[in-house]
Amino acid sequence: MIPVDWKSLFEAPFASTGSFGHGTALRNSRRVRIEWSYCDPAGIVFYPRYFEIFDASTAALIERALGLTMFQSLKTFDFAGYPLARTRAQFIRPTRYGDDVVVDTSFTLGRASFTIEHRLSLDGLTCVECSETRVWVVRNPDDAGRYKSQPIPEAVRAKFRV
Amino acid sequence: MIPVDWKSLFEAPFASTGSFGHGTALRNSRRVRIEWSYCDPAGIVFYPRYFEIFDASTAALIERALGLTMFQSLKTFDFAGYPLARTRAQFIRPTRYGDDVVVDTSFTLGRASFTIEHRLSLDGLTCVECSETRVWVVRNPDDAGRYKSQPIPEAVRAKFRV
Amino acid sequence: MIPVDWKSLFEAPFASTGSFGHGTALRNSRRVRIEWSYCDPAGIVFYPRYFEIFDASTAALIERALGLTMFQSLKTFDFAGYPLARTRAQFIRPTRYGDDVVVDTSFTLGRASFTIEHRLSLDGLTCVECSETRVWVVRNPDDAGRYKSQPIPEAVRAKFRV
Amino acid sequence: MIPVDWKSLFEAPFASTGSFGHGTALRNSRRVRIEWSYCDPAGIVFYPRYFEIFDASTAALIERALGLTMFQSLKTFDFAGYPLARTRAQFIRPTRYGDDVVVDTSFTLGRASFTIEHRLSLDGLTCVECSETRVWVVRNPDDAGRYKSQPIPEAVRAKFRV
Repeated sequence: MIPVDWKSLFEAPFASTGSFGHGTALRNSRRVRIEWSYCDPAGIVFYPRYFEIFDASTAALIERALGLTMFQSLKTFDFAGYPLARTRAQFIRPTRYGDDVVVDTSFTLGRASFTIEHRLSLDGLTCVECSETRVWVVRNPDDAGRYKSQPIPEAVRAKFRV
Repeated sequence: MIPVDWKSLFEAPFASTGSFGHGTALRNSRRVRIEWSYCDPAGIVFYPRYFEIFDASTAALIERALGLTMFQSLKTFDFAGYPLARTRAQFIRPTRYGDDVVVDTSFTLGRASFTIEHRLSLDGLTCVECSETRVWVVRNPDDAGRYKSQPIPEAVRAKFRV
Repeated sequence: MIPVDWKSLFEAPFASTGSFGHGTALRNSRRVRIEWSYCDPAGIVFYPRYFEIFDASTAALIERALGLTMFQSLKTFDFAGYPLARTRAQFIRPTRYGDDVVVDTSFTLGRASFTIEHRLSLDGLTCVECSETRVWVVRNPDDAGRYKSQPIPEAVRAKFRV
Repeated sequence: MIPVDWKSLFEAPFASTGSFGHGTALRNSRRVRIEWSYCDPAGIVFYPRYFEIFDASTAALIERALGLTMFQSLKTFDFAGYPLARTRAQFIRPTRYGDDVVVDTSFTLGRASFTIEHRLSLDGLTCVECSETRVWVVRNPDDAGRYKSQPIPEAVRAKFRV
């Protein structure tokens, strides 16, 4: 199930998230089936699909924290989303269709942004590590088609602190 | 066309690829239409689609260097692909459906891996920067379902040096 | 939750699968969360994502019938897959991110092909109906890169009859 | 390049669009590179990707007819899109990564809907045929989150008639 470990190939590896989620308040974990549609002609996950999986994990964590679906949140808190500002990921072991992987997600609150870390594992072995920084944005009142970042409202922060 | 700049939000920004592609031998540039299907309910590109765009840009650059499609390359050089080992990206300005963006890609050769840098821009302004490290892998002779990394063959290196 | 019903617009509507799954031996039902990533700038599911959902529903039904994941099935029954030969779908009511829909799937066995019907519903109301015909293929012994259809083996048929 | 022809497997085949586009006013043709990301572990296009390709072909044809991008059209004609009401497709020959296919698209105007036919071919041989019926919708004035169909405005009809 674990075709290759190419971690050792790199002299200056990505900083390992050895202390994964350490000190964070919010965590979530979910099981994900690797579908045929996620995989490429090499039979392993086409890596942009991992980002789709992580995006859904972020949404699941935030939905759990706020007690609202994204659709409800957008109405309740009058914001326009939390687009990604930057991400980085390390692909340690491939996964393939039929694998049931676990995605552990943790959350660290900032002022106008937050950081999410994901670890995707199979049978307890880490396959992918990813970190994201996202910003809280609202529609620009001067131009409905544009967005601007804004401090995360206190009503939201309170939920994230639990 | 450029809804927001959230670059300035971060105290310790991603290292800018200011010297983008500096010193690299291989480059490629292509125009990409941002399709409706790439965009999310906020009307902007759903970020995993950028990685699909970058993956195709990497393939286009390598195809140009080798003079072979990926399908032909896999047969000619008897390898199994060049999966991603790690990536990082910074999302500076959103793009939306109907935008015609330019993706500039550059390539740096390693021993058993290579590094690719992509810059996606609209009207000359950088929207997304991404770097990837990919490894050259072959099927494991002991287990056809597994892969192992291997030095990039000299016949390939010669093409990449041009 | 049900933005529009455009069924009545058509004089000669798609044959309704009113007798959905009638007389079929195999059925499966699964709940699917409509993710942000499935939706387009109109805020509703981008329709090719429904086909991804249906493809996974087909795989889930077959996996349940055979007691094997797709990955295991390909090895056990020495075939190359069950590609789609034709499909048709009717989109009756949109769904949007955050919706928890139900996909009911039924299966009818043919000689070298099978037919699958999917009904995706929200709160008991049908949103999408889809039927698929898939063929059982093996690799062409004369050319490993090509496929040819073949009667579904008896060992598989027996499982599908249950 | 043409792995299998499973057309002959079906006693009652899909109505062939032998008279493809016959009598229609609008047509468009575009070349599409089949990317690695479109293909599944069997090495051929994962069929929902064909619908993404066709959706972009529809957008390209309409953009050409109206002389406006989708983004501009939504503003200019004050509508909310042209969601799919029904589609059907027949998959005749697989295509794989590296293939450069041609998509021919034709358009037939209705009152509040229109029909699109796509033929995807490789080296002159038809690989996929697809027809779509789409409806013209506006936001429901009583509920911004809902849509309703509406006759296609005369200003648009005039462009489609050319």
